[in-house]
Amino acid sequence: MPSDPNKPATGEEALIAEYWAPLAAAYPGAFALKDDCAVIASPAGTELVVTTDALIEGVHFLPGEDASAIGWKALAVNVSDLVAKGAEPLAYLMSIALPAAPDHAWLRSFAAGLRSAQAAFGCHLAGGDTDRTPGPLTVSITAFGSVPSGTFVRRSAARAGDHVYVSGTIGDATLGLALAHDPGLSQRCNLERAACEALTGRFSRPSPPVGLVPALRACASASMDISDGLMKDLERMCRASSVGGLIEAARVPISPPARAVLAARGATLAELLTGGEDYEVLASVPVARTEDFERRAQRAGVHVTRIGSITGQIDDGVRALDQSGNPMIFTKTGWDHFQRRDAQ
Amino acid sequence: MPSDPNKPATGEEALIAEYWAPLAAAYPGAFALKDDCAVIASPAGTELVVTTDALIEGVHFLPGEDASAIGWKALAVNVSDLVAKGAEPLAYLMSIALPAAPDHAWLRSFAAGLRSAQAAFGCHLAGGDTDRTPGPLTVSITAFGSVPSGTFVRRSAARAGDHVYVSGTIGDATLGLALAHDPGLSQRCNLERAACEALTGRFSRPSPPVGLVPALRACASASMDISDGLMKDLERMCRASSVGGLIEAARVPISPPARAVLAARGATLAELLTGGEDYEVLASVPVARTEDFERRAQRAGVHVTRIGSITGQIDDGVRALDQSGNPMIFTKTGWDHFQRRDAQ
Repeated sequence: MPSDPNKPATGEEALIAEYWAPLAAAYPGAFALKDDCAVIASPAGTELVVTTDALIEGVHFLPGEDASAIGWKALAVNVSDLVAKGAEPLAYLMSIALPAAPDHAWLRSFAAGLRSAQAAFGCHLAGGDTDRTPGPLTVSITAFGSVPSGTFVRRSAARAGDHVYVSGTIGDATLGLALAHDPGLSQRCNLERAACEALTGRFSRPSPPVGLVPALRACASASMDISDGLMKDLERMCRASSVGGLIEAARVPISPPARAVLAARGATLAELLTGGEDYEVLASVPVARTEDFERRAQRAGVHVTRIGSITGQIDDGVRALDQSGNPMIFTKTGWDHFQRRDAQ
Repeated sequence: MPSDPNKPATGEEALIAEYWAPLAAAYPGAFALKDDCAVIASPAGTELVVTTDALIEGVHFLPGEDASAIGWKALAVNVSDLVAKGAEPLAYLMSIALPAAPDHAWLRSFAAGLRSAQAAFGCHLAGGDTDRTPGPLTVSITAFGSVPSGTFVRRSAARAGDHVYVSGTIGDATLGLALAHDPGLSQRCNLERAACEALTGRFSRPSPPVGLVPALRACASASMDISDGLMKDLERMCRASSVGGLIEAARVPISPPARAVLAARGATLAELLTGGEDYEVLASVPVARTEDFERRAQRAGVHVTRIGSITGQIDDGVRALDQSGNPMIFTKTGWDHFQRRDAQ
């Protein structure tokens, strides 16, 4: 008998049985969420890759955000880290702290978002922890993936001369967030509804390019996901690799809706390159492997674009040249969790 | 140069470098916390056991609790789950959400608590996520352990006739929490300071019996940790195993300070058996292996006590007999995260 959607869900065990256990049904090591721990079997000859990322209401998503989008995003941001390391997603644990009295409709929608993300990314819930909190909704996921032993793609192995690639398009998510903060922006930029939805969807339901995993393992010298802004994340990769980086800004792939915002002066290119939340892959690829990389990406249906190169000039850090070849000036390079503007 | 202890810690990367990276220095798969993911190497012929548990200020620990105790407890409650499954702790990930402007003194003390727990339990930080939150401090840890393949000790394999054991003593932690809520209790019970500290320490710094791991793998038919109350957790084990349970309450090991509280009528035995937060092990052991179990436990320096047995009467659930052989009546059997009183 279905639960009354407006009734608060009570009892940790009932809640686990109704909403979480179905997400774990296909994963034997989850023991149907009826044991204290899960067993993660990673295939022979592979290594287990792990990552954890939390979403907090009012910090990482807007209060009142669609519950299904929150479920999707909580898993997607973790899968994004796995993908960038060349790891195939396997399973995840979820620690969720719910404000008092979550209702059944909310939980059902949240679980549906998780289920869609599981299907899209090829992984299963294996265990978790459900608490209530006097604070905001907090979802902390730990995701597990596997790579053939020794093929984990490091952040720190970019080499001078490598080409720099990104997947997808850059800057959509930050515009999606801007549209949510400032509904007048769409009118000022004369954006159609479909364009607005495309941009807000990139913020609410990021979709890391899981199909790119084999190409990254085969061809990338270094890789990471773009979560805090392209410029900031490339700086991190270059610093970790003791190299410099040069971006040709005109090459950075910008979606048609984002181009419309730029054309209407609703945002600057610099804002798109530093906005964060892209959840695309940033990779360095040795020149000898670029052709293979592009071919593999195309075969996987993932759009990749060469946006610049790795240089030996570590002291120069990362520079971006505009379409006239002049250095771009950034007032900030990306987000910091302790200094970022809140999503509220 | 040491940071000013009263200055707020700012900048996620600086905070990671100063407080978290030293906790990961000895774990190669952590990449010094400079990559997006960690690699967990579990020895050949073993399986990886994983668990996640969160601590939330005002729910799982008292506001104003010593930061070092919070760090200790955040890891200990996760290690408790690993130990009960017969798994040797290996590593952990930590997702921490800090209220605005944590100061250096707090962070230093918290990290010291984690470091002590790492040393006590034999594991290392491998990665994590640091955020700030408008809500209460929330620490969510995912812990990894390993068992020789096929030796994971399930919750659901207790059999009629098995003996029921617990490690350590039961009920100290709930009295420790009661003392924190009601400082007059110690006077009414005429408790000495050392006795009070012993009880509050059991709530603040639980210490799961990691030495018991080999004995559990060799001898236990089923096992779990006691976190929500002995009666409730034994009910869970019996339900999962489709058996019943019978506890002889007079056999349940009670510490001298807890006996003093009972003698002064500051609490009832029923309250100790249902209080929760013990973080001891509850195990069923087939009669033929009890002698070996007790010998191994003694060799490991872990006190274990037989408190009852598993029965075939599943319909009767779990019963406890008092010292006169009469059934005990419980108004509740343990805590539920959604109905529990808050630690505030």
